[in-house]
Amino acid sequence: MPRLFTDRFILTPGPTEIPNRIRLALIREFTNPDLDPDFLELYKGVVKKLKRLVNAEKSDLYIMIGEGMLGLEAAIANLVKKNDKVLVIANGVFGEGFADLVRMYGGEPVLLESNWRRAIDPSDVERSLEKNRDIKLLTVVHCDTPSAILNPVEEIAKIARGFGVLSVVDAVSSIGGVPINVDTSGIDILIGGSQKVLNAPPGLTIITISQYAWDETERVKYNGFYLNLRIWKEELDKEGIFPYTVSDPLIRALDESLNMIFEEGIENVYERHRKARQAAWSAVEAAGLTPYPMKIEDSSPTVTAIEVPTGIDEAKLRETTWKKYGVMIAGSWGKLKGKVVRIGHMGVQASRNYLILGFTALARALRDLGFPINIGKVVEAIEESFH
Amino acid sequence: MPRLFTDRFILTPGPTEIPNRIRLALIREFTNPDLDPDFLELYKGVVKKLKRLVNAEKSDLYIMIGEGMLGLEAAIANLVKKNDKVLVIANGVFGEGFADLVRMYGGEPVLLESNWRRAIDPSDVERSLEKNRDIKLLTVVHCDTPSAILNPVEEIAKIARGFGVLSVVDAVSSIGGVPINVDTSGIDILIGGSQKVLNAPPGLTIITISQYAWDETERVKYNGFYLNLRIWKEELDKEGIFPYTVSDPLIRALDESLNMIFEEGIENVYERHRKARQAAWSAVEAAGLTPYPMKIEDSSPTVTAIEVPTGIDEAKLRETTWKKYGVMIAGSWGKLKGKVVRIGHMGVQASRNYLILGFTALARALRDLGFPINIGKVVEAIEESFH
Repeated sequence: MPRLFTDRFILTPGPTEIPNRIRLALIREFTNPDLDPDFLELYKGVVKKLKRLVNAEKSDLYIMIGEGMLGLEAAIANLVKKNDKVLVIANGVFGEGFADLVRMYGGEPVLLESNWRRAIDPSDVERSLEKNRDIKLLTVVHCDTPSAILNPVEEIAKIARGFGVLSVVDAVSSIGGVPINVDTSGIDILIGGSQKVLNAPPGLTIITISQYAWDETERVKYNGFYLNLRIWKEELDKEGIFPYTVSDPLIRALDESLNMIFEEGIENVYERHRKARQAAWSAVEAAGLTPYPMKIEDSSPTVTAIEVPTGIDEAKLRETTWKKYGVMIAGSWGKLKGKVVRIGHMGVQASRNYLILGFTALARALRDLGFPINIGKVVEAIEESFH
Repeated sequence: MPRLFTDRFILTPGPTEIPNRIRLALIREFTNPDLDPDFLELYKGVVKKLKRLVNAEKSDLYIMIGEGMLGLEAAIANLVKKNDKVLVIANGVFGEGFADLVRMYGGEPVLLESNWRRAIDPSDVERSLEKNRDIKLLTVVHCDTPSAILNPVEEIAKIARGFGVLSVVDAVSSIGGVPINVDTSGIDILIGGSQKVLNAPPGLTIITISQYAWDETERVKYNGFYLNLRIWKEELDKEGIFPYTVSDPLIRALDESLNMIFEEGIENVYERHRKARQAAWSAVEAAGLTPYPMKIEDSSPTVTAIEVPTGIDEAKLRETTWKKYGVMIAGSWGKLKGKVVRIGHMGVQASRNYLILGFTALARALRDLGFPINIGKVVEAIEESFH
């Protein structure tokens, strides 16, 4: 059967379905963002809303044109100099991945490894920093999407600050779905993405920079252009000129996403994501499956990772949900590839009906491949969690 | 009078107005570009169309997520090593700007300066290369947008190849509006942008890479991630995996733009841009104004740069066209700032009615500021050029 344009849903943990309000914002009006003073005001308004979202009133915040990786690399490029020691909290694929970026810029990553099925224990971070007094910077991922693990980044940032160590937090797949307080926790650089919980298209990196981080950029003096944070400060903040032409429709889409969040109420949005996590975990249990994280508290409210049952071919499973049932779910990356499938509950996906689409497709595909599931129970589990 | 949403047109030389077909392509369908095999096919199809557009069948071509500056910096980052000498053809703002990028990567720019009102003379390039036998790379801008100068990049690339020198061509604001033959001229890296003649939103960089350029990347071994061309070859070409999540709506918009070009016929599109240049120059003459380039042949078919008449405040002039007449035109940059205004004729703008909007707004604003213009003659000059 050919794939029907109207019978398909994206339940992957980003990119996600794009709500109609955001689609319309994408094409409502175009301008020359370099020359239109109204656009500069719009951009500043989006920055203000983002600062409010992550409580980063004391930091600077920029929206750069590029995928989340741009922000992650920019953080390292601007803060790491040759031979700098960096504590890399490596309890997941993306956590570990920071080590590669650190090496690219001549830094020396010190890996803090731990059980990938658990959130990192802040006391382990404390011990590592005590043992390695020459560490200048620490990296940690808030939601390590490939395993769905949620790390306690606020506690970790506070510990880092206590040691005079800067903190870089990858919040690409949590921003907008999990509370983050940059100011009170002292996160020095926080990176967010447009295409995860914010339900906008890929192409924007959000980055906050504390005064401590700015001071460090003066020591490091990174010299490139596109990844250079200081150029944003010098050209945009001081002159009101973008370093390069930003993508006005993507900024408008992000603006509409933030409007939707504030209209619903930030706390309501977070509560809805927690409910979605509960619903997903209940559905996993009702289906007789096993979540990858050990405990629900260690699992992100934005994505659920599920072990692929023994004997089931993961590629075949995902192909079946997509090609046969019109629902795209995700596999995983790195050492979890083939072993884990994931359903996103990010933004619009964090709802009863989207989760029912995701889990009934997963259940039907598993049933087709020989793993029997009571689909009615799965639907009821989700329905009940949202009451 | 408040600015009316429906009574405003963007006549700047990129970003431009976005045609409705491209707006609709932006929001027609969203997917997870990392996981949807159909999207990978779509991306490959767009690459194929772009290769056809610039005759780059023998080169590799990628569409990276970021503004044109990303591609310019990627070219230099991947081809320039410490102490490499680079011939920078500096007869315009962007031409000159390459020198900064070269320095960022430790290279030594050798500036070939010449009259900014003229296209570069290829024999000057030849003489420079004869004199500087240790030059490894040459940079040149096809359409140097701030002055509207069009350089003979194909001849220059051929000369470079004759000396065993690599060529990097910035075609950000010409691609799609001026013929470019990468294969026959031997351009090693060509960079294009989405937001100029292609009338798509900002956010995409197009880059072609010849085998000679690939060989050079092996010598240079640039080590970053986001700007690293070799990662695209290794991950996308070999594994079918994007190095990071690409922006699916922007790729779809670019695809639709290319469909429009091929439906019209590439040669017809180029002819329309040449007519637009003629119309713009006739309008400038009818208005009693002076083009910035000395001769029409040295001026790009995609943009016209006009001297601001003595005694006219350029900022006030542009504010009047936009705020009072609803038409945005551009000023210029660098040493041309305040002295030149520009009207784009890129893609949809390269048409009779768009040019009439642009030039009648310019004429009315100049008249308001005390420079008398016979507006009827301006309109007729444009009308006649399109017959």
